[in-house]
Amino acid sequence: MKRNYKMTISYDGTRFYGWERQPGNDMTIQGKIENVLTKMCQLPEGKSVQVIGAGRTDAGVHARAMTCNAVIDTDKTEEEIWKYMNEYLPDDISVNEVRACSDRFHSRYNAIGKTYRYTCWYGLSKPVFDRKYVTVLEQKPDTELMRQAAQILEGTHDFKSFCGNSKMKKSTVRCVDTINIEESGNYIRLYFHGNGFLQNMVRILTGTLLEVGYGNIPVADVQKILDAMSRQAAGPTAPAQGLCLMKVDY
Amino acid sequence: MKRNYKMTISYDGTRFYGWERQPGNDMTIQGKIENVLTKMCQLPEGKSVQVIGAGRTDAGVHARAMTCNAVIDTDKTEEEIWKYMNEYLPDDISVNEVRACSDRFHSRYNAIGKTYRYTCWYGLSKPVFDRKYVTVLEQKPDTELMRQAAQILEGTHDFKSFCGNSKMKKSTVRCVDTINIEESGNYIRLYFHGNGFLQNMVRILTGTLLEVGYGNIPVADVQKILDAMSRQAAGPTAPAQGLCLMKVDY
Repeated sequence: MKRNYKMTISYDGTRFYGWERQPGNDMTIQGKIENVLTKMCQLPEGKSVQVIGAGRTDAGVHARAMTCNAVIDTDKTEEEIWKYMNEYLPDDISVNEVRACSDRFHSRYNAIGKTYRYTCWYGLSKPVFDRKYVTVLEQKPDTELMRQAAQILEGTHDFKSFCGNSKMKKSTVRCVDTINIEESGNYIRLYFHGNGFLQNMVRILTGTLLEVGYGNIPVADVQKILDAMSRQAAGPTAPAQGLCLMKVDY
Repeated sequence: MKRNYKMTISYDGTRFYGWERQPGNDMTIQGKIENVLTKMCQLPEGKSVQVIGAGRTDAGVHARAMTCNAVIDTDKTEEEIWKYMNEYLPDDISVNEVRACSDRFHSRYNAIGKTYRYTCWYGLSKPVFDRKYVTVLEQKPDTELMRQAAQILEGTHDFKSFCGNSKMKKSTVRCVDTINIEESGNYIRLYFHGNGFLQNMVRILTGTLLEVGYGNIPVADVQKILDAMSRQAAGPTAPAQGLCLMKVDY
């Protein structure tokens, strides 16, 4: 029977060229999932299952709970689909839930919020066991300055200065309702919650906040960066490996 | 100045052929550390720094806090040695502390206890982010049965049945004072504390406890396995990747 299924997926993005399917590139997460579902449904040559993701993560970015959906024609139960997918997907992609859902459910259009986490690490030792999921900082930034800057960035703004796509034609206004900076041992974790994020936006926000923490950008300049509406005004794009999509709200 | 230094080391054992240096094999942890220290001390051709570890971990086994020591002739401070080592060691080996210590300190002879952790995971999802540090179980074992068996194994026994080295000529008597089995989400973690462990011993203990948990070995047979004094009597050797040396006591 043909039904719409909602799935939540974890992945270690290290080996992949991002979420989005690319022609001729086998190493995308969407591509891997579509291939497994297409195989499961034994579709005729040339036909394939289309998976809709809540958003696109960049190459090297991880996810604890990406949400996606796909219309699948199968006799399998939810649990059987779940087992099949995990059996055939590689070790660095896990399906955590499969649920039949309304035909109208659309992972991207229905998403009302997302949480991203950016993990930094500093110190004389090295983060051996999660080295692929953190960005190592040369020194400890001043997190109090970072929090002051984060307060300026919170809220509804035109985030054009924080958009990695210079040809973006649609609105670059987004609402980032919270940016929380948590410290634990040698870790500094930045949590971003908002209604949507532009390309590279969390990484550019993080790169800018770190520059503030290092004293290279004064807190007072953060409003000017927003006002500049230019990518050149903001700080660097923080490396992909520290970023993880934590949750999509519906 | 020539001094004895105590070091604590973390490593992801995945890529390595175990702790112990092997002639002609570049991929051992002891070998990597000795090479870096030898380079640091600029020793003449043919001379090398000797590192003494608290014990030897098998190929693929990890450590959060292996302790080792080495007599080093250097003008560097403890912090300078620490920085140098982490700069030249690969990302999967971290030095967490370097301290000058008594000339008499010997990492192996002075060790009075060790804690090992064995991490298992079960479920329909997959442990994406720590997949190299856990052993995935096909099904959930009965942990209550495992705890009953663990109680029988705790204490001072001849652990010959749990020794991977069939040619072991020295005493195989050891004291394992605690075996704790903790459950959290989809994880089952076995903590072993004892005064010393034989080759593969923690892995054979784990493999045997899992067989008890699956109902393949009755709890009542555990004493018989100890009494048999034969490796054939015990369960299989659990995979290396779930094992981690957590701490060495002095």
